[in-house]
Amino acid sequence: MDNKQFVKEIADIEKDFPQWYTDVIMKTELVDYGPVKGTMVIRPYGYAIWENIQRELDARFKATGVKNAYFPMFIPKSFLEKEAEHVEGFAPEVAVVTHAGGKELEEPLIVRPTSETIICAMYSKWLKSYRDLPILINQWANVVRWEKTTRPFLRTSEFLWQEGHTVHASEQEALDETILMLNVYKEFAENVLAIPVLTGKKTEKEKFAGAVATFGMEAMMLDGKSLQAGTSHYLGQNFAKASNMKFLDKDGVLKYGYSSSWGVSTRLIGALIMAHGDQRGLVLPPKVAPIQVIIIPVAAHNGGVLEKVAELETALKNAGIRVEADVRDMSPGWKFNEWEMKGVPVRIEVGPRDIENNQCMLLRRDTLDKKAISLDGLVETIKAELDDAQKNMLEKSRKMRDERIVTATSVEEILQAVENKCFVKADWCGCRECEDKIKEETQASSRVLADGERVTGKCAVCGKEAKYTVYYARAY
Amino acid sequence: MDNKQFVKEIADIEKDFPQWYTDVIMKTELVDYGPVKGTMVIRPYGYAIWENIQRELDARFKATGVKNAYFPMFIPKSFLEKEAEHVEGFAPEVAVVTHAGGKELEEPLIVRPTSETIICAMYSKWLKSYRDLPILINQWANVVRWEKTTRPFLRTSEFLWQEGHTVHASEQEALDETILMLNVYKEFAENVLAIPVLTGKKTEKEKFAGAVATFGMEAMMLDGKSLQAGTSHYLGQNFAKASNMKFLDKDGVLKYGYSSSWGVSTRLIGALIMAHGDQRGLVLPPKVAPIQVIIIPVAAHNGGVLEKVAELETALKNAGIRVEADVRDMSPGWKFNEWEMKGVPVRIEVGPRDIENNQCMLLRRDTLDKKAISLDGLVETIKAELDDAQKNMLEKSRKMRDERIVTATSVEEILQAVENKCFVKADWCGCRECEDKIKEETQASSRVLADGERVTGKCAVCGKEAKYTVYYARAY
Repeated sequence: MDNKQFVKEIADIEKDFPQWYTDVIMKTELVDYGPVKGTMVIRPYGYAIWENIQRELDARFKATGVKNAYFPMFIPKSFLEKEAEHVEGFAPEVAVVTHAGGKELEEPLIVRPTSETIICAMYSKWLKSYRDLPILINQWANVVRWEKTTRPFLRTSEFLWQEGHTVHASEQEALDETILMLNVYKEFAENVLAIPVLTGKKTEKEKFAGAVATFGMEAMMLDGKSLQAGTSHYLGQNFAKASNMKFLDKDGVLKYGYSSSWGVSTRLIGALIMAHGDQRGLVLPPKVAPIQVIIIPVAAHNGGVLEKVAELETALKNAGIRVEADVRDMSPGWKFNEWEMKGVPVRIEVGPRDIENNQCMLLRRDTLDKKAISLDGLVETIKAELDDAQKNMLEKSRKMRDERIVTATSVEEILQAVENKCFVKADWCGCRECEDKIKEETQASSRVLADGERVTGKCAVCGKEAKYTVYYARAY
Repeated sequence: MDNKQFVKEIADIEKDFPQWYTDVIMKTELVDYGPVKGTMVIRPYGYAIWENIQRELDARFKATGVKNAYFPMFIPKSFLEKEAEHVEGFAPEVAVVTHAGGKELEEPLIVRPTSETIICAMYSKWLKSYRDLPILINQWANVVRWEKTTRPFLRTSEFLWQEGHTVHASEQEALDETILMLNVYKEFAENVLAIPVLTGKKTEKEKFAGAVATFGMEAMMLDGKSLQAGTSHYLGQNFAKASNMKFLDKDGVLKYGYSSSWGVSTRLIGALIMAHGDQRGLVLPPKVAPIQVIIIPVAAHNGGVLEKVAELETALKNAGIRVEADVRDMSPGWKFNEWEMKGVPVRIEVGPRDIENNQCMLLRRDTLDKKAISLDGLVETIKAELDDAQKNMLEKSRKMRDERIVTATSVEEILQAVENKCFVKADWCGCRECEDKIKEETQASSRVLADGERVTGKCAVCGKEAKYTVYYARAY
């Protein structure tokens, strides 16, 4: 069998998922470890996925009126300390510049772990009147959080992300923006990444340090663990008060603004890998795949094969499809393995017999179905296959996820469910002790609050009346 | 006159160019000062220019086979020290992280001032065989150089840039790449930024710390000073040897690779401002202008005006033109000033009388010519005007620049020429003393070596036989 070589090299996805993940990201050259502990190098194949994510998200942000800007990476230590909860949350994991230009600095500089404090300080300078509102700004940037345990894409000392920061005249408008961006993320996750997500409010314990409320989106990975794939925070007037960010309202009164912030990061690449991969390696949704179609010549020494390959490549490229032809001097079987491992959505094989029959062979990475297709109308056929692969991947993920959402009425049931790789819906009284107890006994944490009916109406831990229903899961 | 208000607010471009620059960048909201000394905030209007620069350049890089990646920002101090000239050049201006995650680090980390050392360390891990060559990678990133004197866009502690890093099997291939990218920059500067540039090799004194040879492109600003707008370095085997970056060549011998690096930065925004601006403010070339066309209603309370404005806006937007309509409740005169100051290439005015006559008024920012144009075929007319503005701005800049290139045969003539806001072509024996003497006595530095015939054949300083002809200028 063609794939033996690679199947052997990649750890068993069922038996050792963490090693499978590491094997896949390293062998496909998505990423490498940087020289400094906990850092990563995003290699061209991985970065091309990030560029596709950026393009898709950026267009969505701009369609809501958001504009991009860039704020300095160095934050004076005193800024971080302005918001009490915020500094408590971030101080333990910041990197600190103490020397620059050959001298010790008078005030140490924090390398941004997130930019609320510095951005609000600038907004407080720019904001004068209600006419200046809303302020809707996003930045694409690197941030640094010094973590003890790191894994490429999932948790690294430095990572790339976008962070949106908005200011509004009223609580309602800021809350609306918070939810709007959560929904932008959800639509993007489903329609671009082909990953269905649960969205909802986070508990007090899990919320962003300094927020009034955090809303998150959670994605189920193949091992049943949840990955927080994006968050949107309603910040109330917390940062406005810390930065004295005020505006003169229509009624002539000076008021603090209401703000929101929201972000997703290179973590999404980790989500893609762990939501869709299989034993052969990556399976990439067409909308973010760096290469959507790979063309492989078979019996390339035969007259006309390479010419036909070049002709098809040009035709597909001109139609806006990200296509490459692999004309290296290696066996087709070797190439099949390589491009399957790299998760290219559609493979086309062209040999002398195919050309005689005015056809080529097409393999879909998501289904591994192989069939002959006519060279007439090839562009349209390929476009339809890519659309279908995109749709099929979302449906498959959604089906798996939905089958793995269960309800529980006790800590034991929660434990059993998460051991079975499930998300668990259970009722909760709302107290921190019960939330902590579940974490302690099941290693599952509350992911987001669920809408709708209660499971039983009683807290799964203490049995008291439930105020909330929670999705619990073990999480990355 | 409409513009009095702004003319008064912006310092006189002839009398106080530095203050004019500061006034323009602040009043047009391109940029603001960050809280940490020497840092800048790139505001949405400024960042949109950077996005246009990125899109144009990125496509050009990719067309030559370059792919993007991302390398960590933190470089172990020991890495920087591997290349002797490099560390000497950069050590005085680096920012140093000494603490992270609540602890003092065992080895301090340098915030990248440029990434040759860390990128070559990764390449040396990836590079095995001649089959892996060439390596053609670029990254868009922030870098930090702690400078004593800073000015937004021109010289800031942190700035945004791209840095390409390539490796090749031979000296010739690496040199070819170095020149190829220099020419990409030149074509981009002229056809996108509408700025004519002089390109050539830098002297030893002016070359990049660690390079074998540096090639630069120099642009003339309106005050006659030169701005180094981009550089491309041939690094030979310097960094390859420092990082032990070797490959097994076709002949079975293990060899060091030859590398190049090349970069441009947010400095280009400074170049745009100082190459094209006037007393009214910015004049932006259409290809990088965030807004290419601004539509302003006149007598907007009149029935049908706002509807017509919206109709034209939609038509232009659908044609791919970056257009906005300014329907704020302010006088047209106020808006004319504002958008002229912001450098929007084309302004359209629409009033009741215009609508009656099936026309609108069009003002070109680059020429300040105003004329009536028909609403029939408006999209085509606007496209032609934008193309013409782009072309006209380059011609105008080139004419000014060419008129201000003079030759000199003595230090006195060089001094007189740079005082007259000129670039000076003069012969040079090649010794450091003569180069230093010109700098000392005229505050002009050697910008790039000139091709072609000598001016007299004798060094303008010492009179000995000339080995080179040099372009001298005062520089940013």
